[in-house]
Amino acid sequence: MAMGNGHRSNGRQMDIILYELVGHDTTRPFSPHCWKIRMALRHKGLAFRTEAVPFTKVRHVEGGFDRTVPVLRDGPNVVQDSFAIAEYLEATYPDGKPLFGSEAGRGAARFVESWSQRTIHPFVTSVALMDIYTLLDEADREHFRKTREAFFGMPLEEIVHRDPEHVEAFSRALQPLRATLKVQPWISGAEPGFADYIVFGAFQWLRVVSTFQPLAQDDVIMGWFGRCLDLHDGEGRNVPAA
Amino acid sequence: MAMGNGHRSNGRQMDIILYELVGHDTTRPFSPHCWKIRMALRHKGLAFRTEAVPFTKVRHVEGGFDRTVPVLRDGPNVVQDSFAIAEYLEATYPDGKPLFGSEAGRGAARFVESWSQRTIHPFVTSVALMDIYTLLDEADREHFRKTREAFFGMPLEEIVHRDPEHVEAFSRALQPLRATLKVQPWISGAEPGFADYIVFGAFQWLRVVSTFQPLAQDDVIMGWFGRCLDLHDGEGRNVPAA
Repeated sequence: MAMGNGHRSNGRQMDIILYELVGHDTTRPFSPHCWKIRMALRHKGLAFRTEAVPFTKVRHVEGGFDRTVPVLRDGPNVVQDSFAIAEYLEATYPDGKPLFGSEAGRGAARFVESWSQRTIHPFVTSVALMDIYTLLDEADREHFRKTREAFFGMPLEEIVHRDPEHVEAFSRALQPLRATLKVQPWISGAEPGFADYIVFGAFQWLRVVSTFQPLAQDDVIMGWFGRCLDLHDGEGRNVPAA
Repeated sequence: MAMGNGHRSNGRQMDIILYELVGHDTTRPFSPHCWKIRMALRHKGLAFRTEAVPFTKVRHVEGGFDRTVPVLRDGPNVVQDSFAIAEYLEATYPDGKPLFGSEAGRGAARFVESWSQRTIHPFVTSVALMDIYTLLDEADREHFRKTREAFFGMPLEEIVHRDPEHVEAFSRALQPLRATLKVQPWISGAEPGFADYIVFGAFQWLRVVSTFQPLAQDDVIMGWFGRCLDLHDGEGRNVPAA
């Protein structure tokens, strides 16, 4: 867990709590949005502890603050929504390394988020939904099945598809990311930033929940993902792949 | 032309020359990449004059500097490639309003460029190639037809298609842009920046060369495009729609 890594303390380390989604194994957080914030906290050099929250307990976090995680408690402040938390961290801890660096950086990161959620997230759902179901608590499974089957209008087992055409279409949709990483090492340019953590969160989600690997190991995106996993004393690697 | 708009002089206004692609009407520049720089120069408050260059003369700009426009001459400096020119302007004129604001902003703008060139540019080509052909100089048409037909492997007339499914797929591919513009007025956040000019250039290209309108007027993207056209004393609107 992040609290044990001995990185720089902000002098009130026990005050920062990140509430993260987990399944039956509470040491394997998998939510893409929670991973963005874990990386952002490490990026800022902030000490924090995490609280593992199963699906059906999310609504009870911080006395029912909201229905999604991540939720961040920082002393008297409670912030919800991953992008809002990143904005909060940038404003509250300006001395740490920048997550956005400027308003234009913050704005364009929003575009990266919009793209990632419409390109990578639906694909991860389409290939790994049963993997996610399997790693949930017994109590969470029923809720998960009911809500997802209502949303997709079919049984969970039928939602998952991994045919080559589907995987190739996903790979083609990643061309803008690939082209970017051919001219610079990070989405945020010369150094990693929140735009990287946004996309990292999506690929880390797939890595933690599933053994399915849609991209070739020599894909420039996998090279970038490996560099992301190495960041901050291997924060992302500390949770082994599924 | 921009030089006549009376905006703030940088004290050596006649030294900045933007070479722009045109057809037979030299008052109607249409290249998306040239429009990015026209807007970036106005954004920085720099005076400049433009030099109209037909397709087949591009290779002779500044003594054969490169085979693409825009090319920018700024006193002793000659810079080619729209993104490199924006980087040059940001570094050389830090007192003007920021185009990127930070390295993270510059990096994420690269992603916006990669996305725009793979999402909007192929679509504009697919619907407006014959429009572009028609507005070219007689001398340029032969070159244009030959290179494009070789690239696509079919006659120009067959490349263009505007069927509803094609247009709807394009509109769906714009969802990340739409979602971004629902939470903030500009791609660059609270104020326009180079990420906006990148995407503006693509839509302005279509507006200048073709009467074809793929998006509904009440689309949030059209609202943003209208605001872009209003920027810098209506720089984009000074060239009327096709």
